[in-house]
Amino acid sequence: MLALACDIGGTNTRLGLVRDGILLSGSTGSYSNDDFEDFYAVAATFLHERDTQRVDSVCIALAAVATAEGATLTNRDWTIARDRVAAASGAGRVDFINDFEALGYAMGQVEKLKSQCLTPGRAHGRPGPRLVLGAGTGFNASAWCPSRFGAAPHVVAAECGHMTLPLAGEAEFSLQGALSAGRGRASVERALSGRGLFEIYQWQCAKAGRVPSVATAADVSRLAVTRADRDCEQAGHMFMRLLGRVCGDLALAYLPFSGVYLSGGVSRAFARSLSKDPTFLDAFRAKGRQADFMESFPVHLLLDDRTALHGCAEWLRLSAA
Amino acid sequence: MLALACDIGGTNTRLGLVRDGILLSGSTGSYSNDDFEDFYAVAATFLHERDTQRVDSVCIALAAVATAEGATLTNRDWTIARDRVAAASGAGRVDFINDFEALGYAMGQVEKLKSQCLTPGRAHGRPGPRLVLGAGTGFNASAWCPSRFGAAPHVVAAECGHMTLPLAGEAEFSLQGALSAGRGRASVERALSGRGLFEIYQWQCAKAGRVPSVATAADVSRLAVTRADRDCEQAGHMFMRLLGRVCGDLALAYLPFSGVYLSGGVSRAFARSLSKDPTFLDAFRAKGRQADFMESFPVHLLLDDRTALHGCAEWLRLSAA
Repeated sequence: MLALACDIGGTNTRLGLVRDGILLSGSTGSYSNDDFEDFYAVAATFLHERDTQRVDSVCIALAAVATAEGATLTNRDWTIARDRVAAASGAGRVDFINDFEALGYAMGQVEKLKSQCLTPGRAHGRPGPRLVLGAGTGFNASAWCPSRFGAAPHVVAAECGHMTLPLAGEAEFSLQGALSAGRGRASVERALSGRGLFEIYQWQCAKAGRVPSVATAADVSRLAVTRADRDCEQAGHMFMRLLGRVCGDLALAYLPFSGVYLSGGVSRAFARSLSKDPTFLDAFRAKGRQADFMESFPVHLLLDDRTALHGCAEWLRLSAA
Repeated sequence: MLALACDIGGTNTRLGLVRDGILLSGSTGSYSNDDFEDFYAVAATFLHERDTQRVDSVCIALAAVATAEGATLTNRDWTIARDRVAAASGAGRVDFINDFEALGYAMGQVEKLKSQCLTPGRAHGRPGPRLVLGAGTGFNASAWCPSRFGAAPHVVAAECGHMTLPLAGEAEFSLQGALSAGRGRASVERALSGRGLFEIYQWQCAKAGRVPSVATAADVSRLAVTRADRDCEQAGHMFMRLLGRVCGDLALAYLPFSGVYLSGGVSRAFARSLSKDPTFLDAFRAKGRQADFMESFPVHLLLDDRTALHGCAEWLRLSAA
């Protein structure tokens, strides 16, 4: 059984070949969407480069809701029709899964993923669910749960980015006012996303009575981590504190005794701070009398660009069984 | 296969006989713990009354963490040893599950449960997970997820009562101050429990400059629902608003397209208000641009005292398969 795994993002598309539910590590490739007219051209190029005429099935992970016909990317004018993918790849079956569901399925093959442990001394935890969550363009999470009855594991899909942003204390209430202005409320991803980080930075500058001098979220995180700008640094601290708190809240919702995995571009941009600065982990643990209980959950930062492809592979493995 | 299902609460213990994974409806009984020296005496009385000498297995739902030996109730001085239950009932197998996990398993037999729909016109939803959550002595939730691959359904256990209480706006920030005084934080169950309702009432009285005239949470909910006391009524509104918001947040975490089920004594005490007053459902839906999406989730109030027993039955059915 040879299959094609695809992870279609807004900017890049990653592809890989999967045999019997395992991603062939030498087979993967990444392509800039701007270089192609449509997804079919990306897939054709990939298969041609891999000297592969046809595959048995295709699994596509993307940030979109799929219908019987296919899916349309939310952040790019690409429609991906199931029958055209089948025709171009020879596949008898074409499946679409949500991008975060793919990360959830990847938790079933976590030993294949590059990651960094943020809780040294407790890297492994005990048997139980795994939680993957991430801040990037938006925020979301997904939980992988081993079955209690020897059946296939289960992946819980979610829309955690739209949950209420949990805030406490005066400074954060002022931030809530800024983030909810004109919107009536502040959701989790209103703060925990690239755009959210930038709005936290703007709020921080306003609070300090300074004019923002930095133009992008990427710059804010870079200057925060290198401690080169005090407003960026303060904004970074607030971001990590809120990320830690939300991460802890979601750990209480899924009890991931087998590990919490942070994903997403903005989370990764804070890699150095997450491992050296206690802000994130302190907020993760700050659950009153449950602080000791929070130590049950090992926390890791995912560093693997191919996590969603491994998730497609695991999905193909489970759906073929 | 005859089995014994037990739901041990702090005040009452409910028991029932289960044949082939189905609770025998005429078999159930409820006993006041105060009338018995220990759990074994309750079980013996029940089996004697049902003219039953022995069962094949036992499933016990309770608010405690079980070990290999058994479990000790957190709110009563009762230890339940696995081997003594086995000896007293003749069972070859004695299993313990968490009280909220039992409610989660009961979602697999939801058609057997008495409930009231709070979202008329959309009682059924579409295939997907079911979420059960409740405010009583504490607060918790559990999600039942049908398997994607034709295997057994999965129940997600949680500790949602310890998540951060999501608050917004000035009045609620003042409440946060009151609820977190001396504790450093306010968790979900700090507000959404019997004790929480009473603390909201006390805060409401202080805000209004009145001396509290009501002594128990049960009185607060009764006077709120009957609109007999304005402070109780205001406290009840705040309680329902926070319950609706948390309920909506948790719906986003588990996507219960097949239904949200409210459980617990304090939730039930507000039954009349939940169905007549829009406060709860308005707060449930108040997720900004996701308000329409929130309509995907039917919401019900569980009225069945035997929900946990049905959950034990479903657990016995799944574990025997």
